[in-house]
Amino acid sequence: MVQSHRGLLGEIDAYVKRHRDRVQLAAPPLRVPGGEKCKNSVDSLDRVLNQVNELGIDRHSYILAIGGGAVLDMAGYAAALAHRGIRFIRVPTTVLAQCDSGVGVKNGINAFGKKNFLGTFVPPSAVLNDFEFLTTLEDRDWRSGISEAVKVALIKDASFFDHIERHAASLAKRDMALTQQVIYRCAAMHLEHIRCNNDPFEKGSSRPLDFGHWAAHKLEQLTDYELRHGEAVAIGIALDCVYSHLSGLLGSKALERILSTFETLGLQLYSPALLECEPHSPKRTLSVFAGIQEFREHLGGELTLMLLTQIGSAVNVHQVDEALYRRAIHILKER
Amino acid sequence: MVQSHRGLLGEIDAYVKRHRDRVQLAAPPLRVPGGEKCKNSVDSLDRVLNQVNELGIDRHSYILAIGGGAVLDMAGYAAALAHRGIRFIRVPTTVLAQCDSGVGVKNGINAFGKKNFLGTFVPPSAVLNDFEFLTTLEDRDWRSGISEAVKVALIKDASFFDHIERHAASLAKRDMALTQQVIYRCAAMHLEHIRCNNDPFEKGSSRPLDFGHWAAHKLEQLTDYELRHGEAVAIGIALDCVYSHLSGLLGSKALERILSTFETLGLQLYSPALLECEPHSPKRTLSVFAGIQEFREHLGGELTLMLLTQIGSAVNVHQVDEALYRRAIHILKER
Repeated sequence: MVQSHRGLLGEIDAYVKRHRDRVQLAAPPLRVPGGEKCKNSVDSLDRVLNQVNELGIDRHSYILAIGGGAVLDMAGYAAALAHRGIRFIRVPTTVLAQCDSGVGVKNGINAFGKKNFLGTFVPPSAVLNDFEFLTTLEDRDWRSGISEAVKVALIKDASFFDHIERHAASLAKRDMALTQQVIYRCAAMHLEHIRCNNDPFEKGSSRPLDFGHWAAHKLEQLTDYELRHGEAVAIGIALDCVYSHLSGLLGSKALERILSTFETLGLQLYSPALLECEPHSPKRTLSVFAGIQEFREHLGGELTLMLLTQIGSAVNVHQVDEALYRRAIHILKER
Repeated sequence: MVQSHRGLLGEIDAYVKRHRDRVQLAAPPLRVPGGEKCKNSVDSLDRVLNQVNELGIDRHSYILAIGGGAVLDMAGYAAALAHRGIRFIRVPTTVLAQCDSGVGVKNGINAFGKKNFLGTFVPPSAVLNDFEFLTTLEDRDWRSGISEAVKVALIKDASFFDHIERHAASLAKRDMALTQQVIYRCAAMHLEHIRCNNDPFEKGSSRPLDFGHWAAHKLEQLTDYELRHGEAVAIGIALDCVYSHLSGLLGSKALERILSTFETLGLQLYSPALLECEPHSPKRTLSVFAGIQEFREHLGGELTLMLLTQIGSAVNVHQVDEALYRRAIHILKER
C-alpha cells in the first residue's frame, strides 16, 4: 500500500495536522506485509498487539487499517482481542475488499493450515471506500475483485448479473465509473444481507454469501495462496455452477452466460489444484474435496452448500456427489 | 480438579455412557494446569485450539470446561476464537467462580504482564454451579471467594451485606448451606447487573462490578499471582473503602463494619506489595499505582473508579489523590 501510494504517509500526516483539534495519531502508522501471508502466522498480529500495549491504546481509541482484505482481517482481529475490543475502522484498498469484506462483520487469521480458523464477529465502527486506492492495483487484483459481485448477483439479483454481464469487457479494462457502481451495489447487498438475514453471526448452518467458497478456500491453500481470493472464488463459483447444471438444477443457457461472463472479466475457470483430488490418496486433506468437510466444520451442523437454480436464485443442498464434482472439474479443464 | 476429585473422570465417563443417545464426547477430557498460570502463557490456549482442530469440533459442538475462574477464562477464550465461536459451557469449581465470573460474559488471558489484556465478550451457553466441587477447596480458596459477594453487596445491597456480616464466622468455617445462599444471591445479582445495566460489553467507562479491582489486578501481578484473585480483591476493596473514608465519602462506622467483616471472613487487608509504590521510582509500572492507569486503559475514556458513600451505595469518581491513597495504605498496614 505504502509502496503503491508513495505520498500516503505524508498525506496522513498532513491530514492529522490540519485536523489536530479532532484527530490525534498515537504513533506513526505501522507497516505490515500485505496479502494472505499476514494471516498465515501471528507475526503481524503480535506487532499490532504490541503497539496497542506500548502506546496505551484503549477501548475508546480507534485502530484504522488501510489495506486489502487480508490486512483488514488481521488488524481487525487484533483490535477485537486487545482489551476485549478496540474500535476499528476499515479502509479497504482493493476491489474485492471494497465490494465485500470491508462492510462485513468478520475478522481473523489462518491456523492449522485452515483459512480463518481463528477469528471473531465484530462490526467495524466505520468503513471508508476510497476509490483512489484502486488505481494502483495490478490488473489481476482489479479483476478478481469483481468475482464477489458476480457471486452476490448470482444468488440474489438477476438484474445485477445482467449489468455485470453487459459491461464485463469494460470492467476487465478497469472502467472506473462502472467499477464504482458495481462496488457500491455489491457492498450494499452484502450489508443488507448481514442486516436482514437473521443470522449475522452465523449461528445456523447456511451461509449464502459463501457460495462457491468451499472450493475457493481450499484452492487458496493448495496453491500456497498463489491464487488470489477473488480468483479462487471465480473458480469455485464456476465449479458449483457446472455441478448445479450436472445435477439438473441449472439450465445450460444460464450456465454458459455465467462462465462466459467470468471469461470476459479475464478470470480463469480452472486451476490444476482442482485435480489434486484423488479420492483414495492418503493425503486426502490435500484434495480440494477436503474443503467440503472443512467448510462444514467451520460452521458446524449439517453440511449446507448453495447451488444455483437460475441466475439470481439459489437453493441449499446437504449432500454432494463427489463423482459428479469430478466430472464438473473435467468440464472446466477441457473448456 | 482431577487431583482433588479423583473419581471425576470416571463419573464423566459413566454419565456419557448412560446418556449416549444424547451426549457424545469428542475425546477424553483434556487436562490443563489450574490457576492463573494457565492464563499467563498461550500454552494451555494452544492445547485447546489444537484439540478443536484435530477433533473437528465445530460451531454446533460444545466445549465444556470444569475449573476455577482462570481455567474458565482461558478455555472460554479458546472457544470464542476457534471457528469464530464454539458453544461454551462453564462448570465453575470455586466459590469465587460460582459467585462471579461463571455467570459473566468475559473470557481472556493475560499478556504483556497485564491481566486480561486479550479477550472477548461472549455469554456462555450454560453455567452449572455444582456445590460438590467446593468440598475439596483449600480454606483460603473458600474464603477468598466470598470477597466478590462482599463487593456486590457493598455497591448494591445493604441487606445482603448485613447477611454476610452476620454470618461471617460461619462462612469462614465453610458452612455449606450459608455459602450456597451467598453464592446464589451473588451470582443472581451479578447476572442482573449485566442484563439490566445497559452496558454488558463495557462500551462506557464505568465498571461497577470492578469495585476494588484496580489495585487487586495489580497486586496479583506484583505478587506473581501468589495472592489469589479473591484475596487481592479483599485488599483492593479495603483500600478503596479506607480511601472513601479519608475522602469524606464514607462514615467511620460503616468502614469499621466492612473491615471487620473481611477479617472475620479470614481475609487479609494488607499486602507488602502495596508499599512497592514509590511514586518517583523508575520502575513505576511495578507500583500498585500503575494499576490505576492500566485500569483506565483497559476500558478507555475517562478514569472512572467507584468509591463507597455508604454500605450498599457507591459513586463514580474521575480523579484520585495518590497521597491520600498512600495514607490509606499505611492505615491498612498499621491495622
